[in-house]
Amino acid sequence: MTHQTAMSPAMQQCIEDCQRCHNICLQMAMDDCLRLGGKHVAPDHFRLMRDCAEICETTANFMLGSSSKHAEVCGVCADICEACAQSCAQIGNMDDCVKACQQCADSCRKMIGSATQRPAGAQAGHGASARM
Amino acid sequence: MTHQTAMSPAMQQCIEDCQRCHNICLQMAMDDCLRLGGKHVAPDHFRLMRDCAEICETTANFMLGSSSKHAEVCGVCADICEACAQSCAQIGNMDDCVKACQQCADSCRKMIGSATQRPAGAQAGHGASARM
Amino acid sequence: MTHQTAMSPAMQQCIEDCQRCHNICLQMAMDDCLRLGGKHVAPDHFRLMRDCAEICETTANFMLGSSSKHAEVCGVCADICEACAQSCAQIGNMDDCVKACQQCADSCRKMIGSATQRPAGAQAGHGASARM
Amino acid sequence: MTHQTAMSPAMQQCIEDCQRCHNICLQMAMDDCLRLGGKHVAPDHFRLMRDCAEICETTANFMLGSSSKHAEVCGVCADICEACAQSCAQIGNMDDCVKACQQCADSCRKMIGSATQRPAGAQAGHGASARM
Repeated sequence: MTHQTAMSPAMQQCIEDCQRCHNICLQMAMDDCLRLGGKHVAPDHFRLMRDCAEICETTANFMLGSSSKHAEVCGVCADICEACAQSCAQIGNMDDCVKACQQCADSCRKMIGSATQRPAGAQAGHGASARM
Repeated sequence: MTHQTAMSPAMQQCIEDCQRCHNICLQMAMDDCLRLGGKHVAPDHFRLMRDCAEICETTANFMLGSSSKHAEVCGVCADICEACAQSCAQIGNMDDCVKACQQCADSCRKMIGSATQRPAGAQAGHGASARM
Repeated sequence: MTHQTAMSPAMQQCIEDCQRCHNICLQMAMDDCLRLGGKHVAPDHFRLMRDCAEICETTANFMLGSSSKHAEVCGVCADICEACAQSCAQIGNMDDCVKACQQCADSCRKMIGSATQRPAGAQAGHGASARM
Repeated sequence: MTHQTAMSPAMQQCIEDCQRCHNICLQMAMDDCLRLGGKHVAPDHFRLMRDCAEICETTANFMLGSSSKHAEVCGVCADICEACAQSCAQIGNMDDCVKACQQCADSCRKMIGSATQRPAGAQAGHGASARM
């Protein structure tokens, strides 16, 4: 089949923002933070980086998987992204991560408002786009 | 080091229940449900099985990772486990899955009440037990 | 810090291809395959879709995490992507998935040849780019 | 249904060993290693801890998901577990992690030898046990 979509542009954007945030948190934690050491590997900060990477991955998967529960997961993801952005801002020199976390939190908040809306799979007759 | 623990017995139990629920949902989805077909692969049911497996895995990882955000993730996990238990009960012949989901939901609810309590790593001078 | 990169363009492309393949496999399995039923939920086919989604996710994470073991994981990922592409081609009407799996397999094979090359984090003085 | 099993005892043991190794690597990395600092957060060591936790999780999921490709994933898992065990032994005071990694590597090696054997789901008429 040619893959057509009933997935809203907002949800496609949210998946993209979750995956970008996941990528940056995982990369910076395992590269920059470990190389720089000091406050960059302080337990509270580093754990938030890991938490944020994982919840973003899971949240993207819920939307990709046409889950009826995606809005609730988006809510938790937004909270954790905001906490991670704040921690990164306090550490300093983590601007890319701060920005990715804030953008992901914003996108996730928009999904909560549209909680009655199901991902593509729940709507009749359409496949979900995977071109993102 | 010998691995000693400051992790509460309730949290150790919750990790164990999350992983058991993950295992049963994943196994039954990819084995029993696919072999039996029919209502067992109805989109709404099968997606809940996937959702439940993934959120249980993530929730266990938050507690294993000494996350300060575990209680919020436990809350979402409990909701999804309850929805999955209900779906499995309606399908019928999914007793093991119903039971594992309910037990996981109960354990997760207990974690929410103790939200101010941090996992082991946040408490001074102790390692977390990994014997579970 | 501003995020600069020592990650090779080939590795950046491989991460992108792994994540695209993960996305398409997960989306089509949980949307198109479940809606269409029949041969689309045949156990052998559907399990390969799940396997492919998960190994692609893991392989991307190994590269994002500056792992010294990424080439070995890329090798397994390429094999599973090829098996999934073949299964999708036999089922028919899964062109997007066939294409994504083949492209991911090709990118992963290129990583194996450059196995002595470490991801960005292992090279002195540079952060890894997360702009992908 | 009551959940009966055609899964071999060796595979059940391997799933258990993978999940135990995942748990210990994740817990010790995010608790002990971050608290102790120094060589415990040296990039090469810490990345292996993360790699090992993730490949063990993925390997367990392949077996739980009745994958026909589990033996190949077990092979990579065994290699990474051995590298992690060696790194932990060099760091010192990581005995629980060394032991869990070695046991997981041994279990995974046994799966490779039985590569023609499929997980439970591939065998007619039986469900896979999820009691582990």
